[in-house]
Amino acid sequence: MSFKAKESLSEQIAQHLAKQIIHGDMLAGDRIQELRVAGELDVSRGSVREALLILQRRQLIDILPRRGAVVKEMSEAHVRSLYEVMQVLLGLVIRKAIKVVREDDLDAFIELVHGLQVAAEERDLDAFFVLSFQFLEHAYPFARNVFVEDILINMQPAMQRAYFMALHLEADEVKECLSFFKALVETIFRRDVRSALEIIREFAEHQSELVEESITRARQIETAWGSRRRK
Amino acid sequence: MSFKAKESLSEQIAQHLAKQIIHGDMLAGDRIQELRVAGELDVSRGSVREALLILQRRQLIDILPRRGAVVKEMSEAHVRSLYEVMQVLLGLVIRKAIKVVREDDLDAFIELVHGLQVAAEERDLDAFFVLSFQFLEHAYPFARNVFVEDILINMQPAMQRAYFMALHLEADEVKECLSFFKALVETIFRRDVRSALEIIREFAEHQSELVEESITRARQIETAWGSRRRK
Repeated sequence: MSFKAKESLSEQIAQHLAKQIIHGDMLAGDRIQELRVAGELDVSRGSVREALLILQRRQLIDILPRRGAVVKEMSEAHVRSLYEVMQVLLGLVIRKAIKVVREDDLDAFIELVHGLQVAAEERDLDAFFVLSFQFLEHAYPFARNVFVEDILINMQPAMQRAYFMALHLEADEVKECLSFFKALVETIFRRDVRSALEIIREFAEHQSELVEESITRARQIETAWGSRRRK
Repeated sequence: MSFKAKESLSEQIAQHLAKQIIHGDMLAGDRIQELRVAGELDVSRGSVREALLILQRRQLIDILPRRGAVVKEMSEAHVRSLYEVMQVLLGLVIRKAIKVVREDDLDAFIELVHGLQVAAEERDLDAFFVLSFQFLEHAYPFARNVFVEDILINMQPAMQRAYFMALHLEADEVKECLSFFKALVETIFRRDVRSALEIIREFAEHQSELVEESITRARQIETAWGSRRRK
């Protein structure tokens, strides 16, 4: 593993750890030990500490008094909050984008949707995941709003964690996502703000419920096993 | 000046510098020198550097390649972006608050509005300013959403900078603000989401325009002086 300049070292460490949390290689409650990470990546403890502060701000970990850094629990409330905020901010982005977007700008979105379609057909969830966020990141600058861009980029890892889960929870979710992106591009094309906001709301509520339900289910299973083990 | 524990040292330094920027004691383009601040506050340069990173994230300063930390320009686009995001996030807070708020919860809001009224009558702009943000901060937790709370707390200094400007720009603005807070409490009381969102939208657009216009005017005056001086 080698880290090049460009982004600060702590930012790179943060992104490296974020990836493991997003992909479920590290699970809620797992401890992240400064010293171990520093050793594995051959970086200073100070850089790891800074990276952990970044991850805390991005709602991927908690830093607890005596236990140190721990991967954040994905509670139903956490997921609901995430999609609620995502909904209104993405709504703002698309509302603004519809005002300023030109015909040529749409080509990139159409190309991304095409890529998403291919990935969905080939059931290449990794490619689908990457393209989904490329689509969103491509949309953000059309808001011409540094605040919203900054907030969305910071929320993205937490969003990616939930989205990754959603894609892997149900075989049909990739189709739901594809329909969402297609419908969104169409409303941008027709400059139909009302429908765009409605589509975003519906999709956010749908995916939020999907992830929330799976968390509830997982907890029920855990509890059932827990009580059996206790016998 | 003495700094007590509780909040981290760099957070306290950040808040100290933020206050000067919000109150206009430091102006757009002013340089903030690490060494000077460290000396004045008798803290380490490292703590000041961390504080500057916090202020950068909160959109109060820019950190430029060779010039270092500089108080951020308040452009029209910056102000518009700020109020746009504030509008949708406060909208989310109030929408959620209307769902969960109980009768007793409203007492605190009514008391704050009473305080705002007294401050407005006495033309005590400092008290009015402080109470305005106490009102908002009191509302945030009703959203029961860590993401939105976190974002709003981080945006608050930039918001305070614009709001402070607005209050001092026109004698009548304090009345506008008071009407806004009164109307907002009424809509919460009546659990009228639609009117609440409309009131927030109108107020955000009004105050955004007020601040934007004054920035445009200031630039015109500056340009006029500049061109005269150049003769």
